[in-house]
This record gives sequence, C-alpha cells and structure tokens, in this order.
Amino acid sequence: MKRKNIVTIGGGTGSFTLLTGLKKHPVNLSAIVSMADDGGSTGVLRDELGVLPPGDIRQCLVALSDSSEMLRKLMNYRFEKGGLKGHNFGNLFLSALEKITGNFSEGVLRASKILNVKGSVIPVTNHKATLRIRLKNGKILNGEDEINHGSVQKIGVKKMYFGGHVKANLKALKAIRDADVIVIGPGNHYCSILPNFLIKEFSAAIKKAKAMVIYNVNLTNKHHHTEGFTVNTYISAIEQFIGKGRIDYATFNIKKPSGQLMRRYIRHEGKDLLVRFGEKKNAQRSFTLVKGNFIGSAEIKQNGADAISDTRSFIRHDPHRLATAIMYIVQQKAYKNVIKEII
Amino acid sequence: MKRKNIVTIGGGTGSFTLLTGLKKHPVNLSAIVSMADDGGSTGVLRDELGVLPPGDIRQCLVALSDSSEMLRKLMNYRFEKGGLKGHNFGNLFLSALEKITGNFSEGVLRASKILNVKGSVIPVTNHKATLRIRLKNGKILNGEDEINHGSVQKIGVKKMYFGGHVKANLKALKAIRDADVIVIGPGNHYCSILPNFLIKEFSAAIKKAKAMVIYNVNLTNKHHHTEGFTVNTYISAIEQFIGKGRIDYATFNIKKPSGQLMRRYIRHEGKDLLVRFGEKKNAQRSFTLVKGNFIGSAEIKQNGADAISDTRSFIRHDPHRLATAIMYIVQQKAYKNVIKEII
Repeated sequence: MKRKNIVTIGGGTGSFTLLTGLKKHPVNLSAIVSMADDGGSTGVLRDELGVLPPGDIRQCLVALSDSSEMLRKLMNYRFEKGGLKGHNFGNLFLSALEKITGNFSEGVLRASKILNVKGSVIPVTNHKATLRIRLKNGKILNGEDEINHGSVQKIGVKKMYFGGHVKANLKALKAIRDADVIVIGPGNHYCSILPNFLIKEFSAAIKKAKAMVIYNVNLTNKHHHTEGFTVNTYISAIEQFIGKGRIDYATFNIKKPSGQLMRRYIRHEGKDLLVRFGEKKNAQRSFTLVKGNFIGSAEIKQNGADAISDTRSFIRHDPHRLATAIMYIVQQKAYKNVIKEII
Repeated sequence: MKRKNIVTIGGGTGSFTLLTGLKKHPVNLSAIVSMADDGGSTGVLRDELGVLPPGDIRQCLVALSDSSEMLRKLMNYRFEKGGLKGHNFGNLFLSALEKITGNFSEGVLRASKILNVKGSVIPVTNHKATLRIRLKNGKILNGEDEINHGSVQKIGVKKMYFGGHVKANLKALKAIRDADVIVIGPGNHYCSILPNFLIKEFSAAIKKAKAMVIYNVNLTNKHHHTEGFTVNTYISAIEQFIGKGRIDYATFNIKKPSGQLMRRYIRHEGKDLLVRFGEKKNAQRSFTLVKGNFIGSAEIKQNGADAISDTRSFIRHDPHRLATAIMYIVQQKAYKNVIKEII
C-alpha cells in the first residue's frame, strides 16, 4: 500500500508531541510550522540577528530527527550562565544556518540533513511579521509574546492579523496540495495554530485540497484566552478560515486525568480548565467525533532529550495514543475498536 | 603495510594546516591540542561558562572532519550582531557538549562523532589553568591573551608555567606511547606549542616514546616574542623539555615568498620576520634538516569553510607540501628527491 502523505499544522510543543507519535508509523510526514513566535531565546535572536523564529521549527526537527540521543539533547540544550544565558543551542544552530545560507527555508533544509530528519519541516512563511490582536476596545496586543501573556478573552478579540506582508511559503502550499491527510493541532490556539490560517493562500489551499482533515482538540483551555471553549468553539474558529464542514474528524479526550495529576495541575493553573465536550444530546455535527483516552503519562521529564519547554503544560497528549487514533482514522477502520485499544 | 600512527602536537591554525594536509594520506591521526587559549570567543566562554577553551580543538575537529562543507562552514561561523557578537558557533557547540556530558574530553568525543572526524582530537589536559610568564624583571603576564599581545622578548622570559594544577590527559599519554611519528608545530611558540610541553608527564612521555620526532619550523617569527629565532633556537626551546637530540627531523622553508606576498606581509607586520637558517657552514647538528618549499598560496580565503581566524598570518604553510615532506620522512625515502618534488 502506498504510504500516505500526512501534513501536520501547528507549532510549538503540540506539534512536537504529535510528530513524535506519528513518526513511528509508516507514513510520509510534513510538518508545517507557524512563524509568529517572538518570546524567549527565539525573540532575542529575532530582534538581534533579524532571523526568523527558530524555536518551533527546532522542536519539529528534533521530533522527526533520527539522529543520536546526544544530538537531540544538544538541540534542546539551554545555556545557563553569562551572556548566553537562556539561549537554546538548537535555536543558535538554526539562526547560524539561516545566516550562512542567507535564507531560512534553505537553513531548515540543511539542518534537516545534519539531523537526519525523516520527513520535512516547513515554515508556513518565509516572511518576518509581527502577530497582532486588536481587542474590542481598540487596544492592540503586539507580538506573540504579548498576546501569549496578555488577557485576550476579557475584552474580546476584534481582529487578529499580521503587522506586515506575509505570504505563504510555496513549499507549504505544495505539501497541502499533495496531502492525503491534514492534521491540525494540538497547540496554543492564538499563538501556534491560528497564525498559520491567517495567511490567506494557505487557508485557501486547505479549502480546496483533496485531503481528509483531522483536528486534535486541546486537552485544556488557556487562561484568559480560551476559557470555556468546547469542541465546537475550536472547530468553528478553524472553519472560519477553511470553510464550514471542512474538518472531517476531531479527536477529543474523554479520560479524566489521575487525581494526582489534577491536583498538580490545579496547583499550577489555579483552576480546572479541562476542555469540556459541551454539546447537546443528539446535536448535529459536520464532523466525526473520535473520543478516546489521549492523556500522556504524568511523568514530566524536564531534562531528557524530549523535554522541550518550561511552558509545556502538565496535562498533555500521549504521542502514541494520539498517533494510533489518527492512523485508525486514516485507515478508516471502525472506530469502536480503537476506543477499546487506546483506552 | 600497517598504517603509521602519527601524533601531532600544537594548537590553533598551525595544527589546522598540518592536519588538513596529513588527512589526505593513509595514516592514523591523533591531534594533541594545547588548552591555554583564553582570548576571543573562547575566553568569554571560559570565563562565563567555566568550560575548557574550545577554539583550538574546534579547528582540529574541522580539519579532520569528513562531513559536509556546510557543517564545516557552520563550525567556523561567527555571529556578527547582538549579544552573540563574536561568538563562534563551533565553540558554542563544544561548550554545550561539555556541559551536557559534564566532561570536556567526553564532549570532544561526541563532537567527533557528530562531525564524522577521521582520527582523534585530544586535549593535552582536562584541567583548567591559566598560562603565565614571569619576565626577568618580575612582572607576570597572566593568561594566553596577555602573553600573546604582550612584549615577551624585550625583558626576557624568566619562567613559563601554569597558575594551577595541570595534569596530562591520559589519552594524550597513550597516544604518545602508541605513536610511530610525533610531529610538533607549526604554531605560535609561546601560546600553542610550549604550553603542551610544560606538562611534565607529557614531555617525559615523549622523551621515552619509541616514535620518530619531526619538528616543523615556523615560517615567520612573532614580533616581541620570537624575533631573531633561527632553526636552532626553536629546536633548543623544545629539547629543553624532551631532551637534547630527541628531535630527529626538522622541516624548514627555503623558498622566498613572492614579491607581492612579501609586500603585503611587511605592510601588515611592519618588517620582514621570516625565519632565517642562521647556522654556520658545516655546523654539527643532532637532527636531519629537511629543506623545501613549504609556502602556501597567497590567496587568503577569509570566508570559506577553511578560513579560521583573523590572526592567521599572511605567510603560511601549504598543507599539502608540508604533509608530503612529512610522509617522505616517515617512509624514509631519500630526501633529495623530495626537494625536487616539492620545490
């Protein structure tokens, strides 16, 4: 059987988790990554060197890298002292390659070769532009970092846009055209997922692509951003861009996290923000809902090769459970069996 | 025929040139590198992160790397702006690996694997210590950077030593024991060559090793350091540590650089500091002098993968001429033929 072309859309740790799971399966993977990040080490490099944000790309490269554990550790290494403090080695690696090749896409390609990446990692755009949100009171949140740490929901979003010209990377458009399956999320709704869809040609390409579309609903909502969001709120937000009814399947976690994990999570977040189903009985929907246990292990490795970011939430997807569900959908097997297997 | 074990001793661009030439020949190469560097990017990393000086090791790794041109370019890439300005990517790579593995030697080993290095690059010590020179008037030059930029010769050197405990790396001692041939230099006399020999067990190991010893005389002397040095001055300086008569062969350039190159060199240096033979006719000597044309091309690639350092002198060894002469010596072919071939 011909290997399916699976294209993931996201950025950040959500994509890392998804790709880590999917790469174990016999598929061709392309990871399309949003380029709106401007915080932390990435933000400093963006400001000082004028490079495109490397952080999200790096996470996807590491997820798909077939190289040694040591090289993966190195890519995630963060300097702890002196003038380099807070800088991530992998970000410096991508920035240096962008500078040497004179082109971010080319730099990512070279990095993929050095890291023996199985699949492609594709920046959604090669343009540098600042993500902005105009709130309903006229106030503007300027940049991903400000959006991520700001209160979006209290006043409400009037408009989200890029402060500058942003065209889609042609490689991203080609990947969408060639895709058998498009998988969106999980990930930070405003900062990792939506910035991809703001690029008009990109959303238009998905609209008319032949591929099946799967949306992975986040496990938890984000304070002051997506509090109270349900499966339908998320789906509608995406379908605003790619057309109503375009999403064919949505994966949704129905397994309650362990008491210990919930206590730890609530201590950290202040309250329970798990995403609820929130749908009336017998409600009509345009997509097939794929419910299952997608909760990852409570163990959070902070120093392993796979530990990526301090902002990673306690409650997160299990890469293998999520990928298994996606593969079942792709292969159109009866879903009832999947639930049994993955719960 | 069994491949010969050739061990080079040095540090900096001299070792880079030598190794670049030797790696084209069917020999087993080990590069022993001095660890006294504390200037530039290396110095900052040493101070701020407490790592061993990566600069000289990096140059040897790049020389022996069999990886892509791109990876070699990357290792030599220097950031040009912002807080990273002046930092060399390869140095950051080695420092991050030292931090991750907790050990410089282990970091170098991992780097060698990633860079597909043919041979071994061995720090002469794993101890951090500052190189010092006490001048005849009691003044102390503290650190390689201060020595390198200071005036050593006017007052004269009373003593050169490490300001702290420095023991030889056991791997360096083993390489010396197993060597068929030991090649010393070319390189900065006080800052790259001598710091190796200051380590007592290391010099003692060379004294009693079975290997033939070849010394490559520098092409030019260094202002306020080695002005007026002749072949014999250099040889005596090394034999103070490893025993009189221990050096079997010395290579010495007798080809005058082109007029254009000399003019450029003198414009830069202020005067002609070419190393002179300076020996009386029919003088007795304990080593075989191997004279030839060892001058490299006048083209100085400042941006290629092989461009290493701003301090690289205009007049430098040609890697292939130097390596060819060494291989002829190693194979004990009549040297007269060599002169014909390499001039």
